Amino acid sequence: MYKIKHKKIISTRGGDVRHGLRVDDEEFVGFGEVYFTEIQRGFVKGWKRHKEMQLNLLPVVGAIRLLLKTEFDEAPVELIFGEADYKLIVVNPMVWVAFEGLSDRNIMANVATLPHDPEEADIQTYEGAE
Amino acid sequence: MYKIKHKKIISTRGGDVRHGLRVDDEEFVGFGEVYFTEIQRGFVKGWKRHKEMQLNLLPVVGAIRLLLKTEFDEAPVELIFGEADYKLIVVNPMVWVAFEGLSDRNIMANVATLPHDPEEADIQTYEGAE
Repeated sequence: MYKIKHKKIISTRGGDVRHGLRVDDEEFVGFGEVYFTEIQRGFVKGWKRHKEMQLNLLPVVGAIRLLLKTEFDEAPVELIFGEADYKLIVVNPMVWVAFEGLSDRNIMANVATLPHDPEEADIQTYEGAE
Repeated sequence: MYKIKHKKIISTRGGDVRHGLRVDDEEFVGFGEVYFTEIQRGFVKGWKRHKEMQLNLLPVVGAIRLLLKTEFDEAPVELIFGEADYKLIVVNPMVWVAFEGLSDRNIMANVATLPHDPEEADIQTYEGAE
């Protein structure tokens, strides 16, 4: 359903450099598109399920709570990542995904294996517990 | 030496989505690595010249002043981009690059056409006017 890979933060004068995804990483299965999603604190975006796209998610700013499930009716797995716990989360195709912003400002990058195609994704309204 | 391409910001409930680079963009010549560079306000990183890598630079947070020149002794071209002026700046190989953070927080993404290889880049110390 998913895979977590820790990524290096290189301490550099004037500001750190954070690794994202490389063509020679074992997670790399192709490049489609890079985009950046802002998520307000407490807001949940989702659910969305990509039929073919593998998501390669990186927390560029803040912290994000990721919810993943393979069947829509099951309880999701919860993963949290962010600047203070920097890592790549790879989400396989056919996994339902929702995500919530946890900090004042939150930006997540997706180095997606396919370019955006609305026909390639299923969408369901998120109904949170609160 | 460089190319500028405006990229869409999609207004979405809970936070905008900003386009980065797509495999079917005419700028796309291959994927090597995505990484994120933080640049403190007033700090300049550079100069660096990649022999083969094309840089595809995106301002994820804040604003950045980019300095570009083909000959080390010439005066640089200055480009400014950031969240308020969101665009992709493509830098060709064999161009000297330096960049400075202009806001409280600045993060730039590079969707590089090659993975990092220290042998592939030349480095020169930046000596700013101040």
